[in-house]
Amino acid sequence: MHIYADNAATTKMSKSAIDAMLPYFDVIYGNPSSLHSVGQKADEALVNARSRIAKQLGCEAKEITFTSGGSEADNQAIISAARIGEKKGKKHIISTAFEHHAVLHTLNKLEKEGFEVTLLDVHENGIVLPEQVADAVRDDTCLVTVMFANNEIGTIQPIKEIGQICRERGVLFHTDAVQAAGHIRIDVKEQNIDMLSLSAHKFHGPKGAGVLYAKKGIALTNLIEGGAQERGKRAGTENIPAVMGMAAALEDACSHIDENAKKISALRDRIIAGISEIPHSILNGDAEKRLPGNINFCFEGIEGESLLLLLDDKGVCASSGSACTSGSLDPSHVLLAIGRVHDVAHGSLRLSLSEENTEEEADYIIKSVKEVVEYLRSISPVWNDLINGKREFIIK
Amino acid sequence: MHIYADNAATTKMSKSAIDAMLPYFDVIYGNPSSLHSVGQKADEALVNARSRIAKQLGCEAKEITFTSGGSEADNQAIISAARIGEKKGKKHIISTAFEHHAVLHTLNKLEKEGFEVTLLDVHENGIVLPEQVADAVRDDTCLVTVMFANNEIGTIQPIKEIGQICRERGVLFHTDAVQAAGHIRIDVKEQNIDMLSLSAHKFHGPKGAGVLYAKKGIALTNLIEGGAQERGKRAGTENIPAVMGMAAALEDACSHIDENAKKISALRDRIIAGISEIPHSILNGDAEKRLPGNINFCFEGIEGESLLLLLDDKGVCASSGSACTSGSLDPSHVLLAIGRVHDVAHGSLRLSLSEENTEEEADYIIKSVKEVVEYLRSISPVWNDLINGKREFIIK
Repeated sequence: MHIYADNAATTKMSKSAIDAMLPYFDVIYGNPSSLHSVGQKADEALVNARSRIAKQLGCEAKEITFTSGGSEADNQAIISAARIGEKKGKKHIISTAFEHHAVLHTLNKLEKEGFEVTLLDVHENGIVLPEQVADAVRDDTCLVTVMFANNEIGTIQPIKEIGQICRERGVLFHTDAVQAAGHIRIDVKEQNIDMLSLSAHKFHGPKGAGVLYAKKGIALTNLIEGGAQERGKRAGTENIPAVMGMAAALEDACSHIDENAKKISALRDRIIAGISEIPHSILNGDAEKRLPGNINFCFEGIEGESLLLLLDDKGVCASSGSACTSGSLDPSHVLLAIGRVHDVAHGSLRLSLSEENTEEEADYIIKSVKEVVEYLRSISPVWNDLINGKREFIIK
Repeated sequence: MHIYADNAATTKMSKSAIDAMLPYFDVIYGNPSSLHSVGQKADEALVNARSRIAKQLGCEAKEITFTSGGSEADNQAIISAARIGEKKGKKHIISTAFEHHAVLHTLNKLEKEGFEVTLLDVHENGIVLPEQVADAVRDDTCLVTVMFANNEIGTIQPIKEIGQICRERGVLFHTDAVQAAGHIRIDVKEQNIDMLSLSAHKFHGPKGAGVLYAKKGIALTNLIEGGAQERGKRAGTENIPAVMGMAAALEDACSHIDENAKKISALRDRIIAGISEIPHSILNGDAEKRLPGNINFCFEGIEGESLLLLLDDKGVCASSGSACTSGSLDPSHVLLAIGRVHDVAHGSLRLSLSEENTEEEADYIIKSVKEVVEYLRSISPVWNDLINGKREFIIK
């Protein structure tokens, strides 16, 4: 059996998204900035993709800037808000302790420039409260950036309520929606969002394609200078095949969002129930307010990396957390942020499902995880100490 | 007849480049940072693409950073060199007056930060002399950035000689090789290049894929912060289909570089000879030291935009200059840099050929340009004044 359960890292492209890209490689291959017919057909595609994506997000086409992906969009959103803020003498930013590194590292860069950053606690359930934002906003706050749904533990944040507070206090609100877009409903107007980032390859679209939504009137700062593409805010020949693939994938995802969520969350809950039977295991993140496809557990007495490799041997592709930090030996900053101690955070497993997964696969995953955890514990000196009472269990 | 003669704006993807991408959309679709087998196969592709591209440029795989395109690579190269320079108190940069805006606008940004920029004259033939670089280098010069070949007039610069001067004077040397890569021979070691930018869609590869070569030991500054991809120097999930397509396209182009150059430059010279018969027309840029596929003329008494639109009606896709600035009403900064006055610079035509163009097409282009120029002059009040002696010809 081969099961792909790492859809938070990246997804398999859908046939419809691939089909939407193909004509733009060698038939309508023009540069949309060219005045001739081949260029103008490419420009029509660009206009088409932009308006279709805007419709899915509930905004206007001119509020969409195409980027090379979610990280670029996050960087540009935050840098832009910071530049707007500093012109008014506002150099305080509010975020959370478990944002993606595309957000956290950009904030680190701004701190070196003299910005002050408040990272809100996300509690053991992995959810920040709107009141925390209200309490943290100061007169010199220029930006609140809180992710829509966490990339490791899948918890969904009270975006609309946070947006409402920001609007009342006159502070820009950005959300990294890389994990949310195409999976849960987004409407930037209804949800009071000023800026939003998304990435196509997280919803069966192409890699190398992202969107930065910025409400009209927000002046973007270029990360990439050059030609006048994207209203002068993002230089470089537009990637027409990618934006057409992204538009198709987002439409697909949004038009099936409720049925997919229902199907996937049933599989999720089945797997959570099954894995919960493993003693000394704990679900990370709120059981209800989480992405339909996200499952994240810690197991006492084992190493996450060994768990993944043995699951892979059994044909199950999973993750210990974010793919972006997989090269690191440090435990996940997300799991530390929800209060897991180092030893426990090291023994984590993230499974992220798509609508292609089946009940049969869910049962195979449960069985495999049980077997692998049991095996790893049988050879673990730490587990031996735990069951012999030489060490205390952290996960009861 | 339909003739695409705007290959400097973008190219049609080759079948081999498309074929090289396809498996990575929905078969080997993993995130290369993932530890499981699907991710590791994607990582193998990343390693493969990097080493193949390095081989074509004459450098080591670890000296290659993948970007979303040429503009990003240019920006990152220049910003990186500036950051290295300012740490040593060196804040002077040398470039030329006719660089791409990805270079010039990045230099403008640095000027606002207090850097000093010297833009060298490129003479009427569109070529900068190594001696000019030698004369301009100062003790506080941190970077020389000179394009390999100009994007509008195609003139090829004495890169190896400039690189030699930079090496002797201990100054970093970057070249924007977006128009050169895949068209003329590049060997970064042999040509004394420290940093080089290229873009895949200029040589029948995919849009959204570029390379920044940086000699080992040069510390890059991130434009995009986040995950640890590209040795921590460029965050964002790697675009595996795009880098595989780029590797295939670069290998294709480089393995046929001499035969293509021979074929294309014969067509180029045929068209130049034909168009030169038009009275009061002038070839822009050196007739010899130019890209095999580049033809650029100014015609007195006409508007470039009308010329393009009428050529398009006849099935010829051409450009007045750079696609990146086509929305602008200002005359080309490149043509102004080689001494064309405003009125003449407005009446420009760039034709950029590929190996797919034929002699029959070349003859059709000549015939069409002659007809269109004649027609536009017949309705031009300026031309009427010129032939009636009320205004003096600038192009004799």
